[in-house]
Amino acid sequence: MKRDSQATRRRILDEATVEFARHGIAGARVDRIAASAGCNKAMIYAYFTSKDRLFDAVFDAAVVRNVTDVPIDAADLPEYAARLAEQYEKYPEVDRLATWDRLERGGAGARTTTITAATAHKVEAIAGVQRTGLVSDRLPAATLLELIYAIARTRFDSVAPGEGAPVPEHRRETVKEAVARLVRP
Amino acid sequence: MKRDSQATRRRILDEATVEFARHGIAGARVDRIAASAGCNKAMIYAYFTSKDRLFDAVFDAAVVRNVTDVPIDAADLPEYAARLAEQYEKYPEVDRLATWDRLERGGAGARTTTITAATAHKVEAIAGVQRTGLVSDRLPAATLLELIYAIARTRFDSVAPGEGAPVPEHRRETVKEAVARLVRP
Repeated sequence: MKRDSQATRRRILDEATVEFARHGIAGARVDRIAASAGCNKAMIYAYFTSKDRLFDAVFDAAVVRNVTDVPIDAADLPEYAARLAEQYEKYPEVDRLATWDRLERGGAGARTTTITAATAHKVEAIAGVQRTGLVSDRLPAATLLELIYAIARTRFDSVAPGEGAPVPEHRRETVKEAVARLVRP
Repeated sequence: MKRDSQATRRRILDEATVEFARHGIAGARVDRIAASAGCNKAMIYAYFTSKDRLFDAVFDAAVVRNVTDVPIDAADLPEYAARLAEQYEKYPEVDRLATWDRLERGGAGARTTTITAATAHKVEAIAGVQRTGLVSDRLPAATLLELIYAIARTRFDSVAPGEGAPVPEHRRETVKEAVARLVRP
């Protein structure tokens, strides 16, 4: 019974991830999620209370996976950024979820406990290498982290779509080069 | 009569900008735009054909204003980026429109003629300073331009909201410092 309910919860989260990534928070339909997950709407509300809380759970799980799969490597921030970029490439829904959250709720989702703790840990790691002098301290650690995210997220295809846009292997080198320049003492 | 119709067109565009920036393309309601602009839906369709074409017109006008207000200064890219950041701060709807376009249509709006031409001009200007050796050519001009956009757009408040987040005057200096590092020969 307990095992069944965990499997159902997991299935709801998976289907909700697809639905929210595609349509955003306002555009997502709980009955569509229920149909895909093979359960009914009442069950979704029983597990997650509301569409907004369901989005929080989806977003939280996506960020936790990113943090687990790509732990911060403060000793080699360009390589860390390149791995983040690969992760964004592999799971494009993470950036889409974060973007919907920002557009529709002003970024409220980024303040759940797990995400706040994971972010604080990364900022502290960067501040640590700044103290050793291996990374420039011209910009605060939190600012560097935010720039690393912004660069790792960039797709390098909006300016010149189709023509001269870097393919994935070039994307990796582009991100490394940009972040190396940013952190150089 | 002609003057009246231009004023109406202008009013529709202004109200549509507010509506699309707030709710996105799917979420925008043409009857809400009509009510705010003091006209009827039929008039909007007569001028702009469809909700999608109306979005194109809104997005195009927003980008044209950005290009006109902040012309590229290839000789001083850090200062250009700082002015772009100020423009994003002043007209937050431009980034929201671009983001909705990317989420909902995969960035199709960025391919309207005006925007393509304006972008090609900027890429050429950057390639020009790269040839003089004043700007590093380690990254292609189109990639540098995309990184400049990404950095200028960054709000520097998502990582540490409220605590230590740079206020606008710091944002300007942060953007300048980051772009200076990126373009240094």
